[in-house]
Amino acid sequence: MSARPTRPGGRSAAVVAAVKAAVEELIEERGRAAITIPMVAERAGVNPTSVYRRWGDLQTMINDIATYRLDPKRPLPDTSDLRRDLELWAEEFVTHYSQPVNAALLRAGAATAGEVESDCLRNRRIEASLLLERAPDSFGLDPDQVIDFVIAPIIYRIIFSPWTVDETTAPRLVGRLFERVPV
Amino acid sequence: MSARPTRPGGRSAAVVAAVKAAVEELIEERGRAAITIPMVAERAGVNPTSVYRRWGDLQTMINDIATYRLDPKRPLPDTSDLRRDLELWAEEFVTHYSQPVNAALLRAGAATAGEVESDCLRNRRIEASLLLERAPDSFGLDPDQVIDFVIAPIIYRIIFSPWTVDETTAPRLVGRLFERVPV
Repeated sequence: MSARPTRPGGRSAAVVAAVKAAVEELIEERGRAAITIPMVAERAGVNPTSVYRRWGDLQTMINDIATYRLDPKRPLPDTSDLRRDLELWAEEFVTHYSQPVNAALLRAGAATAGEVESDCLRNRRIEASLLLERAPDSFGLDPDQVIDFVIAPIIYRIIFSPWTVDETTAPRLVGRLFERVPV
Repeated sequence: MSARPTRPGGRSAAVVAAVKAAVEELIEERGRAAITIPMVAERAGVNPTSVYRRWGDLQTMINDIATYRLDPKRPLPDTSDLRRDLELWAEEFVTHYSQPVNAALLRAGAATAGEVESDCLRNRRIEASLLLERAPDSFGLDPDQVIDFVIAPIIYRIIFSPWTVDETTAPRLVGRLFERVPV
């Protein structure tokens, strides 16, 4: 009946938190290509067997860890101005991925993507839907347009040319959404 | 005078071609995660030492091979209609990455991107510039807009949700560029 075992989170949640911290530290120190499961397990102070049992391999583990990054329960911007909300939301995304460790996790996640939609990207689509639904006037925008014209260019640039992303990126991309011929 | 020297490209070009074919076959057969340099060398019929000497490691090799994929010397669409040219150009890109092996190479390339601009993406920006410069009226568009609003969403979807890319994707994205308030 209950989704909650007697030990809520317990050892399992502690292992995930320790492994996540270890992966982030090691990626910053040595870069994604240099890290291995035994190295992560040692840094996290857990048995490598626990890591293999939970994730199977390094790539799966990194992909899973990467989806932990932007808290899906954080409050969304709510300024009563759709354009401003979208700008703040996109800025948060830019700020998040401007940290080299987050960009490295994103690139590592990209390498194993393509089979199922990642939690991270599903969450962005849900958030875009919420922002649009809440607005008194959504200007004919739909979540897929927000993904294509705001999120995709940010992700693309973070992956392939992070030096082209700055504080002008989010407002410029959101501005583009509002440049349409009025409907 | 001839584009064909006595040893066209010579050993080096032959090694690249054999390695490229081997990587593509192996990625299709076994997936990116399973392949190794000795495996590629064996399939290509070259000495693993040649592969290590040229590329250093597997990830660098795959990244380099990935940039070989869309021939930068191929003719660009030239219909005397900028919108149609951009649609055909974007459709070519979609078709290219709709082949699973090309999508796999793109994802593998993403994992090691971010230090320097890849040849592949630099070529796309050059092509966008050429298409815009050649047009009698470029509608105020610049190459960065074409990258952000056409190429980025295609690449993003190919990497993270390839099942959302179809024959409507390219004309829809290019159409968005032409929806602006007239300048």
